[in-house]
Amino acid sequence: MLQSKLFTKTQKEDPREEESTNAKLLIRAGYVDKTMAGVYTFLPLGWKVIKKIEEIIRREMVALGGEEISMPTLQPKKNWETTGRYDAYDTLFKFQSFFTKTDYVLGPTHEEIVSPLVGKFVSSYKDLPVRIFQIQNKFRDEKRSKSGLLRGREFLMKDLYSFDADPKELEKYYEKVKKSYAKIFRAVGIGRQTYLTYASGGTFSKYSHEFQTLTNAGEDAIYVCDKCRLAVNREIIEDVHGACPECGNKNLREEKAIEVGNIFPLKTRFSSAFGLKFAGANGVENEIFMGCYGIGLNRLMGTIVEVSHDERGIIWPEAVAPFKFHIVELKKGKGRALYEKLIKSGAEVLYDDRDATAGEKFADADLIGIPWRLVVSDKTKDKVEVRKRSESKSKLISYGSLGQLL
Amino acid sequence: MLQSKLFTKTQKEDPREEESTNAKLLIRAGYVDKTMAGVYTFLPLGWKVIKKIEEIIRREMVALGGEEISMPTLQPKKNWETTGRYDAYDTLFKFQSFFTKTDYVLGPTHEEIVSPLVGKFVSSYKDLPVRIFQIQNKFRDEKRSKSGLLRGREFLMKDLYSFDADPKELEKYYEKVKKSYAKIFRAVGIGRQTYLTYASGGTFSKYSHEFQTLTNAGEDAIYVCDKCRLAVNREIIEDVHGACPECGNKNLREEKAIEVGNIFPLKTRFSSAFGLKFAGANGVENEIFMGCYGIGLNRLMGTIVEVSHDERGIIWPEAVAPFKFHIVELKKGKGRALYEKLIKSGAEVLYDDRDATAGEKFADADLIGIPWRLVVSDKTKDKVEVRKRSESKSKLISYGSLGQLL
Repeated sequence: MLQSKLFTKTQKEDPREEESTNAKLLIRAGYVDKTMAGVYTFLPLGWKVIKKIEEIIRREMVALGGEEISMPTLQPKKNWETTGRYDAYDTLFKFQSFFTKTDYVLGPTHEEIVSPLVGKFVSSYKDLPVRIFQIQNKFRDEKRSKSGLLRGREFLMKDLYSFDADPKELEKYYEKVKKSYAKIFRAVGIGRQTYLTYASGGTFSKYSHEFQTLTNAGEDAIYVCDKCRLAVNREIIEDVHGACPECGNKNLREEKAIEVGNIFPLKTRFSSAFGLKFAGANGVENEIFMGCYGIGLNRLMGTIVEVSHDERGIIWPEAVAPFKFHIVELKKGKGRALYEKLIKSGAEVLYDDRDATAGEKFADADLIGIPWRLVVSDKTKDKVEVRKRSESKSKLISYGSLGQLL
Repeated sequence: MLQSKLFTKTQKEDPREEESTNAKLLIRAGYVDKTMAGVYTFLPLGWKVIKKIEEIIRREMVALGGEEISMPTLQPKKNWETTGRYDAYDTLFKFQSFFTKTDYVLGPTHEEIVSPLVGKFVSSYKDLPVRIFQIQNKFRDEKRSKSGLLRGREFLMKDLYSFDADPKELEKYYEKVKKSYAKIFRAVGIGRQTYLTYASGGTFSKYSHEFQTLTNAGEDAIYVCDKCRLAVNREIIEDVHGACPECGNKNLREEKAIEVGNIFPLKTRFSSAFGLKFAGANGVENEIFMGCYGIGLNRLMGTIVEVSHDERGIIWPEAVAPFKFHIVELKKGKGRALYEKLIKSGAEVLYDDRDATAGEKFADADLIGIPWRLVVSDKTKDKVEVRKRSESKSKLISYGSLGQLL
């Protein structure tokens, strides 16, 4: 894409009313725009990052046997009364139709929709298991919203829901999802900083599990066991007597972290509220065991920025970068041939063809954070100066050897 | 995909509380589930159709120079007050945060967001034109909702917004979009029934244009000029003195139709409300001319069903069908080799591997409406019985000649 055609521009100054690094950098670089507190517009560059993250997640969901659906944002009050969460859920947006006086909830999650939905189609053990996922906007009436993309009032989320015939099947699937989640966080470039973390299981399970990414921007505190490469959320550290639940290690280090994913054995919490049953092979009626598995896409994007930036800007991991290459031409038109060559080879390229100074172009390239910067100027002659955004040294290579970067 | 793995099932009976053909067929075939009046869940088959429609539209938007973004559903009241539509827009969902008392509007459209957004980035004639599009959920507090997917309270919509330096540039782009829209409706299979229709331009333009698809299920009345292959909406038929605005033909035939798209020269209606200006080459400040161009994806899907079905079920045009082939095996396991062969060739295939009678399988195949039905049974021996869903005759062909269908 030609940078001159991008309707957004970078900003030199930090935006007012933003405290978080992720929001400051993403706004300055033109990835998002703040519409109001906790509510962001995704601009062309930002939407490309979200789509990359979405595809990585979708691939894993399909590999887990997930069938993709799309559930409504407008949800009926009665479903929330059925589960007792109409009053208990503390961040529900509630409102009414002016004309029909129907009471709505603005979906913060979809257990109240997916459970009765599955109940319509499952009656026998032959209909199980069911794995359903969705990637869509959710809404929460947050008291405060000051962490940029980490905690919004409107946010894009992937949820996977599983329905199994018994607790053992649920557990088997739960373990499979755990592995998939680890794969997803590695794929988007934060695997090294992300820990499987024991968390509270609520009323129905001993534990649930979170995936927590270490960063000082985190709102959570976790205790890391370096022996097992896992962690314990502070909320249950007393319950486990300050020891790693796997190896008993008491030498845990406290860290700040962001919860980038969570998986939860719901068991019969929602299936029993909606009366979901199935007839087993012997004809006896049984309860259905549910699990839910969430990843917030906005939050994941914000987290990547928190763990991968420097004082000059964002450093995108290649898998989620809006483009792989950023051509910076310092002489008008000199980047054109290179741009066309790379595009022809199928690469994703942002081509800075603007009339601007070298200083402005370099500063923008660092701020935007595309993995490979390719400079062409009078000085580079018939070669290209290549620099990885994550490294400080650059080298001159010939057009012919660009193939090795593809 | 194996039909035995699909978590949805077909229904023999029409759903209660649905009057429209599109909702009856889509629910019975397992494409959508009605969550409540005017609010639907898209099930795996239905979501596949939406994704196909989405890609067809996206391709055209990109060809029109559109940059994709995602704007929020939660919109600030003050933006709607700025345009005077907080009170004037008659289907706004309005509500308040319990904690912060912030007043929100649930976005029924996005002029109130996109206009100030573009204002942040455009200051000079060099920054124009701008073309932005989005594909996302919108919400309307409809008094009544009885036409299935044609008029929902929550619905997926594509909106393209254009920003130009003067009325002539707007008009040129408007004409380009007109052609793209015609291409989209041809691509999804309703080109023959769809007419460019003159409609009211509101306060700021003489006309706007709709794309209207002829069907008895339509809520609109239009007057078709067969000479020009265009139409006039009833709302302005008196203004044009009952004549075709192009050729003056007074011999127009009245038809019922569904509005599947509309394009509207907004001119300065919103840019002036938000104070959008740009400096021309001569330094003089000018107003920005806007256009907006919408297509409702749910409505388009419902319309395709209205114009393309028979008494047995849906007849999907190939471009938007959830799968191209539907293998119906009447002998357990006999379809497996064919399924694997087609999948290997990259085709999209639903494979009815269920334990069910031939009658049930044929009825389901007709109801679901996949374009090519491939029957394998004892009777077909080493061949396949091929029938197009839109035709009544079938023929036996060898596995080797299946390639011609790909």
